[in-house]
Amino acid sequence: MATQTKPVLHGYFRSSCSWRVRIAFALKGIEYDQVPVNLIKDGGQQLTEEYTTLNPMQQVPAVEIDGTTLSQSLAVIQYIDETRPGPRLLPADPKKRAQVRMISDVIASGIQPLQNLYVIQKIGTEKVQWAQHFIDRGFKALEPILKETAGKYCVGDEISMADICLVPQVYNAVRFKVDVEQYPTIKRLNQTLVEIQAFKVSHPSCQPDTPSDLQT
Amino acid sequence: MATQTKPVLHGYFRSSCSWRVRIAFALKGIEYDQVPVNLIKDGGQQLTEEYTTLNPMQQVPAVEIDGTTLSQSLAVIQYIDETRPGPRLLPADPKKRAQVRMISDVIASGIQPLQNLYVIQKIGTEKVQWAQHFIDRGFKALEPILKETAGKYCVGDEISMADICLVPQVYNAVRFKVDVEQYPTIKRLNQTLVEIQAFKVSHPSCQPDTPSDLQT
Repeated sequence: MATQTKPVLHGYFRSSCSWRVRIAFALKGIEYDQVPVNLIKDGGQQLTEEYTTLNPMQQVPAVEIDGTTLSQSLAVIQYIDETRPGPRLLPADPKKRAQVRMISDVIASGIQPLQNLYVIQKIGTEKVQWAQHFIDRGFKALEPILKETAGKYCVGDEISMADICLVPQVYNAVRFKVDVEQYPTIKRLNQTLVEIQAFKVSHPSCQPDTPSDLQT
Repeated sequence: MATQTKPVLHGYFRSSCSWRVRIAFALKGIEYDQVPVNLIKDGGQQLTEEYTTLNPMQQVPAVEIDGTTLSQSLAVIQYIDETRPGPRLLPADPKKRAQVRMISDVIASGIQPLQNLYVIQKIGTEKVQWAQHFIDRGFKALEPILKETAGKYCVGDEISMADICLVPQVYNAVRFKVDVEQYPTIKRLNQTLVEIQAFKVSHPSCQPDTPSDLQT
């Protein structure tokens, strides 16, 4: 792989879907370049014609990799997993793989799309309540699922795509002032995961496009 | 597999996510039992305590299979694909697999969650416009993606999970009076796919719980 061009991640420091991909790259030990796409500035740089060719959904992330451009974070993560060495991001056992995908999709289809910037902007009033409602609804479902599947991490004792999805969603929950104390399994898993180096280096507080007042 | 219990699909005739799973079972030639969960009747049978233990998200589908219960249709479909013989639902080539997952997720994360019954009920007024807006936005993105990836089907010339997601989403688009004529690639793919037996037998118009006035 040494002669290959590095992947390029077009993302935004605070986007939970961009963060998922950054965690996957970090867990796999893959070097990549970042091109910031500011979702706020200039009315949203994801709306430019240039960016729309990379991702017609006008969302981050988009990843240039192996001569192709991929969007949708879970598709990117599974592509990385299937083409790169390093720790598996999905377990070998089919039932555990299904659990990992189920948990990932509860977040990626059941929660995140309903509280992302674009949708929140479409909701006239009660933006925060709307986001809280959908995060709470998702976490109420995740908590009993994770109680069944979790070991040290979301599914058993190996880090997986489910963990990659969980941590950025908990970060969003905190931003929207959801009381995470209500969800002891989610809280415990998140506390364990945020101490891991791959989750730390990919954190929104320390990306190239993190505004200086949000850096920690 | 002859001695194994048949999988049980808890679903609803008109749910696009239930239809996805029905198509997958049909493509693989897997016999299964259906337990209808009426999303309207009795205030929504998915909200019962009994159903909530099957799927804490209180959504359909939930699938009992191989001694476990799975929800999230794409997790179910990929589990079926990884554990059952029959035609592949995801291609062998990693780049094509990524494209299949990308297209599936544009629909399963980018469109369907924003126009499903629960969200539409939460939107006070302008329910139809809301749904139309998000379906149109998704189809505007899908059209150029599919123009790149499609052969006879969504990705090349083999039926995949992307096709399984596309047809039920086009069905929803028509229900919400989205003008599919604007999207020639989507229209062409859908027309080809709806003629295939696995898509026909799984259609909302001919399920055990289809009301008699909606049967065709």
